[in-house]
Amino acid sequence: MGKALAVSPLAVALPDLPPVAGVSFATAEAGLRYRGRADVMMASFIPGTSVACVSTRNRCPGAPIDWNRGILAAGLARGLVVNAGNANVFTGRAGAVACARTAEAAAAALGCSADTVFLASTGVIGEPLPVEKIVAVTGDLVANLSADNWAAAARAIMTTDTFPKAATRRCMIGDVPVRVSGIAKGSGMVAPDMATMLSFIVTDAAIPAGMLQTMLEDGVAPSFNAITVDSDTSTSDTVLLFATGTAGHAPIGSARDLEGFRAALFEVLHDLALMVVRDGEGARKLIEVTVGGAVSAGSARRIALAIANSPLVKTAVAGEDANWGRIVMAVGKAGEPADRDRLEVSIGGIVVAREGARVEGYDEEPVAAHMRGSEIQIAVDLGLGEGRATVWGCDLTHGYIEINGDYRS
Amino acid sequence: MGKALAVSPLAVALPDLPPVAGVSFATAEAGLRYRGRADVMMASFIPGTSVACVSTRNRCPGAPIDWNRGILAAGLARGLVVNAGNANVFTGRAGAVACARTAEAAAAALGCSADTVFLASTGVIGEPLPVEKIVAVTGDLVANLSADNWAAAARAIMTTDTFPKAATRRCMIGDVPVRVSGIAKGSGMVAPDMATMLSFIVTDAAIPAGMLQTMLEDGVAPSFNAITVDSDTSTSDTVLLFATGTAGHAPIGSARDLEGFRAALFEVLHDLALMVVRDGEGARKLIEVTVGGAVSAGSARRIALAIANSPLVKTAVAGEDANWGRIVMAVGKAGEPADRDRLEVSIGGIVVAREGARVEGYDEEPVAAHMRGSEIQIAVDLGLGEGRATVWGCDLTHGYIEINGDYRS
Repeated sequence: MGKALAVSPLAVALPDLPPVAGVSFATAEAGLRYRGRADVMMASFIPGTSVACVSTRNRCPGAPIDWNRGILAAGLARGLVVNAGNANVFTGRAGAVACARTAEAAAAALGCSADTVFLASTGVIGEPLPVEKIVAVTGDLVANLSADNWAAAARAIMTTDTFPKAATRRCMIGDVPVRVSGIAKGSGMVAPDMATMLSFIVTDAAIPAGMLQTMLEDGVAPSFNAITVDSDTSTSDTVLLFATGTAGHAPIGSARDLEGFRAALFEVLHDLALMVVRDGEGARKLIEVTVGGAVSAGSARRIALAIANSPLVKTAVAGEDANWGRIVMAVGKAGEPADRDRLEVSIGGIVVAREGARVEGYDEEPVAAHMRGSEIQIAVDLGLGEGRATVWGCDLTHGYIEINGDYRS
Repeated sequence: MGKALAVSPLAVALPDLPPVAGVSFATAEAGLRYRGRADVMMASFIPGTSVACVSTRNRCPGAPIDWNRGILAAGLARGLVVNAGNANVFTGRAGAVACARTAEAAAAALGCSADTVFLASTGVIGEPLPVEKIVAVTGDLVANLSADNWAAAARAIMTTDTFPKAATRRCMIGDVPVRVSGIAKGSGMVAPDMATMLSFIVTDAAIPAGMLQTMLEDGVAPSFNAITVDSDTSTSDTVLLFATGTAGHAPIGSARDLEGFRAALFEVLHDLALMVVRDGEGARKLIEVTVGGAVSAGSARRIALAIANSPLVKTAVAGEDANWGRIVMAVGKAGEPADRDRLEVSIGGIVVAREGARVEGYDEEPVAAHMRGSEIQIAVDLGLGEGRATVWGCDLTHGYIEINGDYRS
């Protein structure tokens, strides 16, 4: 790997992450690709921990995706092993064997069954995973497990990330306080669906796997599936949600008992997803695109993504150029119902175009001032219906070319 | 406008363009945006010239697109006025008025009806077209019309193009030689459908408008609609094909009479389309992507475009990195039927991956040598069916960011 990357100007500080009863973490240097830093992370969960998983819709998924899908139905988790630097994707039969070997080694050391050990790998595609290097550090990992290792875990899963990503919330289930904490990694090859790269969330709530899965799927739609860095969808994207059940609240009777938890989970997912965009490869500006007045929410989302993914919009934002004509172009290219002569475009809350033309007496200066900021808001109203969606992306800069034009060398 | 751009390293020399009987060209400096260069081009066609047109599918088309659609049904052309620097897009009622004013002024000077004058504009979106500047040079344009002005016409329509684009072929209809010549401009905001920006083709064949339209639509599919620079679809894309009917061949009896002509037309369209990619903003390498073994031709095309548009594939090519894992990612993200474990990927004719894994004893050196060249060939065989498609794109470099991050300033 090449030189260290400068930290994103949009970086967010790592929050304090209090222990969550029932989970502990350890990290180790397996030397898979990086030198002088931890590149393997293990989590250990108390017996009875339930699990939910959402993973990539890419048709060429990595071996760990297959592995997790194969063991998810039981809804139980005891371990998690994540490595950075090699994605174990397009590695054929050897990739599947490497997954089984990793899970079995971890299971033996943790004293559990291999089919309760979840896996995730990110990094280079197509190179065989040197699995024995992971197996070799398994004993050390288990020996060093600690509930206080959240921050180290967030760092060990990074690849081209320039800052570690974590979020945490406290909520109530009945009269018992519950914690939801998560970490994420990802900064390129990010687009719906799934947009995440990797994210691991743990709560001490006691929630059956089926309810957990439904909530995770609902929560991913407006968060990880509403961000885009480069329109490229990774083969490895994975969000895992673990519930250790140690909080001590009464059993969940109905969905209403989980209203507070659901809100806290959604906030954690939202925060983590936006951190991934904030660490978008080369990103200098966060772009929020809201489309309203579309014929449906799906149509609004597709138009919003067409804008957020447009290289011409992204470079205009990088150049601090209030080039709203490119926004109109992107609306038109989405292929969704749109009427040029009803379109309203706003930048930073200022209407720049309405009913098919620039507004009378358009004053570019306040719009230009907004473009010089680090968080750019683009809003389009199609004037056709009630469909509405918001997505987040980032600008396209020389940094993206530098990072991706020379990633492997 | 900023500094002049360096000529693309993939540029093609302008061919000799012999006169085509029945058409003459003139150019003028209207000072719309550029200084010290011609920015308006006029063509005059002999009475009886038939015309065909294919234009953008963008839902927010420019005013000239509306104008041409309104007059195309009659199938007759006497004039063409093209300007560079202002696209007359999203200009509301004023944009439509500007079109009528331009066509009427040209018609008066040419002695024809305004509804036989076709229009095209490219450049900045959303700024009112200073139409009186075009009207002011109309007299000069008509006074300077010459059949020998092909090269000047190719130059006058350029915007961010770094080289003028033209192609010509000779063919036979019966025993009479016929000429097909065309010019094009375009280097950014290029993606199906339409991919061209602007292209104007003239033949001295005598072909009814209906047959001309069918042939043009057929010919655009594997040429202008198979290229992509940045996945952005312009609001102004237009291909116009004019047939002056001066060649003197016998009337067309059936499609068979036009086999040679059709082949020549397709070659001209293909050459011009590839020149647009060769002038892709910032392009250093031409990328040809062929997908075979897909379930249908449409599926093959969508997968090929996913590869050619992937920022991660494009930056890998820019970095001369044989990162075939990103090709696999792009296949998977297309959302089309694909089986990871049947996939074969070749670069420069060398198979690098087969049946879901890197080939045994993979030697990267010959592949790396191919990546150092200026024309990169990527081939994917899905192993599922007979669907096949080829598309062309270019790499994503710092030059693209430079050109588009500061276009308007």
